[in-house]
Amino acid sequence: MSSIKMFEKPLGMRDTFPQIYEKLELIRTTGSNLLKERGYEFIKTPTVEYFDTVGKASAISDATLFKLVDNQGNTLVLRPDMTTPIARVTTSKLLKEKIPQRLAYFANVFRAQQQEGGRPAEFDQMGIELIGDQSVYADAEVIMTAIDLIKAFGITSFKVTIGHAGVLSCILQDYTESAEQAGKLNKLLVKRNYVGFEEAVHAFDLPKTKSDALLAYIEEAISLPSMETIERYVRKNDALEYMQNLLRILEQAGYEQYIAFDFTLSSHMSYYTGMLFEIFATGSGFPLGNGGRYDGLLEHFGSNVGATGFGLRVDRLYEVMPKIEVENNQVLVLFAADRFAEALIQAKFLREQGKQVTFQAYEGLIDVEALKEQFEVVNEFRSKEA
Amino acid sequence: MSSIKMFEKPLGMRDTFPQIYEKLELIRTTGSNLLKERGYEFIKTPTVEYFDTVGKASAISDATLFKLVDNQGNTLVLRPDMTTPIARVTTSKLLKEKIPQRLAYFANVFRAQQQEGGRPAEFDQMGIELIGDQSVYADAEVIMTAIDLIKAFGITSFKVTIGHAGVLSCILQDYTESAEQAGKLNKLLVKRNYVGFEEAVHAFDLPKTKSDALLAYIEEAISLPSMETIERYVRKNDALEYMQNLLRILEQAGYEQYIAFDFTLSSHMSYYTGMLFEIFATGSGFPLGNGGRYDGLLEHFGSNVGATGFGLRVDRLYEVMPKIEVENNQVLVLFAADRFAEALIQAKFLREQGKQVTFQAYEGLIDVEALKEQFEVVNEFRSKEA
Repeated sequence: MSSIKMFEKPLGMRDTFPQIYEKLELIRTTGSNLLKERGYEFIKTPTVEYFDTVGKASAISDATLFKLVDNQGNTLVLRPDMTTPIARVTTSKLLKEKIPQRLAYFANVFRAQQQEGGRPAEFDQMGIELIGDQSVYADAEVIMTAIDLIKAFGITSFKVTIGHAGVLSCILQDYTESAEQAGKLNKLLVKRNYVGFEEAVHAFDLPKTKSDALLAYIEEAISLPSMETIERYVRKNDALEYMQNLLRILEQAGYEQYIAFDFTLSSHMSYYTGMLFEIFATGSGFPLGNGGRYDGLLEHFGSNVGATGFGLRVDRLYEVMPKIEVENNQVLVLFAADRFAEALIQAKFLREQGKQVTFQAYEGLIDVEALKEQFEVVNEFRSKEA
Repeated sequence: MSSIKMFEKPLGMRDTFPQIYEKLELIRTTGSNLLKERGYEFIKTPTVEYFDTVGKASAISDATLFKLVDNQGNTLVLRPDMTTPIARVTTSKLLKEKIPQRLAYFANVFRAQQQEGGRPAEFDQMGIELIGDQSVYADAEVIMTAIDLIKAFGITSFKVTIGHAGVLSCILQDYTESAEQAGKLNKLLVKRNYVGFEEAVHAFDLPKTKSDALLAYIEEAISLPSMETIERYVRKNDALEYMQNLLRILEQAGYEQYIAFDFTLSSHMSYYTGMLFEIFATGSGFPLGNGGRYDGLLEHFGSNVGATGFGLRVDRLYEVMPKIEVENNQVLVLFAADRFAEALIQAKFLREQGKQVTFQAYEGLIDVEALKEQFEVVNEFRSKEA
C-alpha cells in the first residue's frame, strides 16, 4: 500500500477535529434542549437497515444509497435519512403506546458520492417527526419549531418557503390538457428545471390562456410573500383552504416574518401528500433543511394516522450561524518522575476547579515547548534530583 | 414484501427508544466531562473507511467486518473500532501540531453477526488514545483514567487486570523448546483456551521442570493480586521491570485496590507490544472494556512515537451501573382551535420554567385519555364555542 493511499478516506468522508467537534456538540446540545422543551423525545435507529424496508421507501434517490450485502445475501443500506427508519419504528411499535408521537433525532446519514465534488458522503441531521396528528396544528407546530430552532442558533436572516402538493397538482391539472402533460411539468419542478418547464409549456401547444397562465405562474410562484397571488391561479379547493388556515395560525403565533410561499415545490416521492417546505438562510445556496407532511409513507407501513416533520443539516447550520466561541479551560501540569505524587494532587485540585488539566511527565519524545504554547497556565514540577 | 419483513432490522441491529436514549446521553455527558477534565480532546472520524487503510490494520477479525464496495470498486468497511482511524488521523495530521496527543471518542462501531445470538452488530464505544508518549506514565494515566471513568458511572465492584506482551513472550520462550511451540501456546492464550494450553504442554514432551512450570503458570497467572507470584516464573527483563514500575506508580496514586494482573493476556494483533489490560465488573461475564500499548500500529502508519489507550463498551457499562433516573418534566397543554393563541402563551411560559411541554390540539385521531396518562400536569384550553 502506498503511503498516500494509507492515509486516504473514501470519497466524501471527513474527519472532525477537536475544535469543530466541540462547536458541533454545542449545536447538538442547544438543539436537543429546545426540542425536548417542546415535548419531543429523542430516538436512535441503526446505521444499517434492509434496503427492502428502508432504502426503497426513502425519499433519497437510489444512486446515492450506500449499499452492502450481508452474510445471508440480503441487501442493506446505510440510512439515507431518518424519516423512513422512524416511520418503521413508530408504526411497528410506538403508536401502540400513545398517539400522537413526537420524536426527535440527531443522526448521521449517508449519500454515496460519484466523484470528488466537495459534497459530504456522511453528514449530521437534526430533526423531528410528529406522527399521528393530521390536523393543520401539527404542520404549524413543525414549521414553528423549525423556525425557533434556527433562531436558537443565532441565525436571524432566513425564510421558510412553504408549498403544497395539492395546490400544485390542481394548477398543473387545470392549465394542461392531459395527466401526461401535468406529470411531465411536475417532474421538471422536482428537478427545479424552470427553463425546461417553460420549454415544455411552449411545446405542448396549449390554448393561449392556459400557457400564459402557466408561464406567469412559473415566474411568480417560486417566491411569494403572501398567499394572495397564488389565489389568482387556482380555483377554490381543500389544499388552498388548508394553506390559508395554516398561514392564519402562523400569523396568530407571530411567525409571519419568517414565512414565504413557493407553490412550485414538489418531491419525487409520491408520499409527500400535503404541505412541504424548505428553509433558506441568507448566504447559503443550499437549503438548511426541509420538511413537510408525508402521510403516504405511514400508509406504506400500514398506518393511516398521518405524519409531518423536518430535518436540518447540521453542517449547513454551522456554516451560516454566528461564530461559536468555545471556552478554553486547558492548563498543563508538567512533572518529573520523582514528583509524580505531588503533581497529581495539584492536577486533581485544578480539575475540581473546572480546569481541563493535561498531566504530563517530562519523558520520551514529548515537545515541552510546543505543549507550553498550547496552554495558558503551566505548573511545572521539576526534578529535585537534578 | 411481507409485513413482517417490512418492519425487520438487519441481524444484530437495534433501535434505541427515548427512555434508554436519555440514559445513554447521561453516560455520554458524564464520560465526556471527565475525559475533557483530563485534557482529552474529542474527535470524530467517518463511519466508513477504506479496508486497505483501516480494515486490515484493525485488531478486529476479518470475519466480523462489515464490508461494502464503492462506485470506484474499492472495498470499504464500517469502522470496527476507533483506535485504527485515530492512528490514521494522528499520524497523517495531528502529530505535526503537538506531541503528545490526548484524544477521546464516543462512537458507534460495527461487528457483522453470522447468526442471531443476541450480540449487537453496532454498539457505542467510549475511549481515549494517548499518542506520542512512550513513558510508563502514559500507561499509568490510561489505566487511572479508565478506573476513574468506571467509578464516575457509579460502578464500584470491578477489577482492571493487567498483563504485558513482553513478560508473556519471555515465559513462553523460556519454558518451551522452539519458537514454534511458543507461538502455538500464544495462539491458544489469544483464544483463552486454557484447556488447549495444558493439552499442548503435555503433547510437547518438554523436560519436566519446564512443563511443570508452564502448568503451574497457567493455573496462577490468570488472576494475580500482586506481581510477586509472576516474578517466580520469569527471569529479570525489561518488561518485568516496566510492570514493577507501573505498579509502583499506580500504588503511589492510590489505585492498587482496582488492580490485578493477568500474565496470560495476549492479542492476535502483533502491534500490541507492551502492557495490555481488561476491565471486568462483578456481574458481567464480558469485559467492560480493554486497552493497552500499541506502538506497533503507529509504526504501521509510519510513526515511531508510541501510543496507548483504552475503549469501554457503553452497552455493558449501562448493564452493570446503578439504575439512572431521568428527571420527568413532561407536561401537556391541550387546546381547542379557538384558543390556540392563549394556549401558546401558556406553553411558552411553562417552557421558560424548564418544563417539557407537549402542545396538542384536540383534533384528528389523537387519544386524549392516553396522553393524559403520560403526563403529570395537564392544562386544558377547551373550546369556548362548545
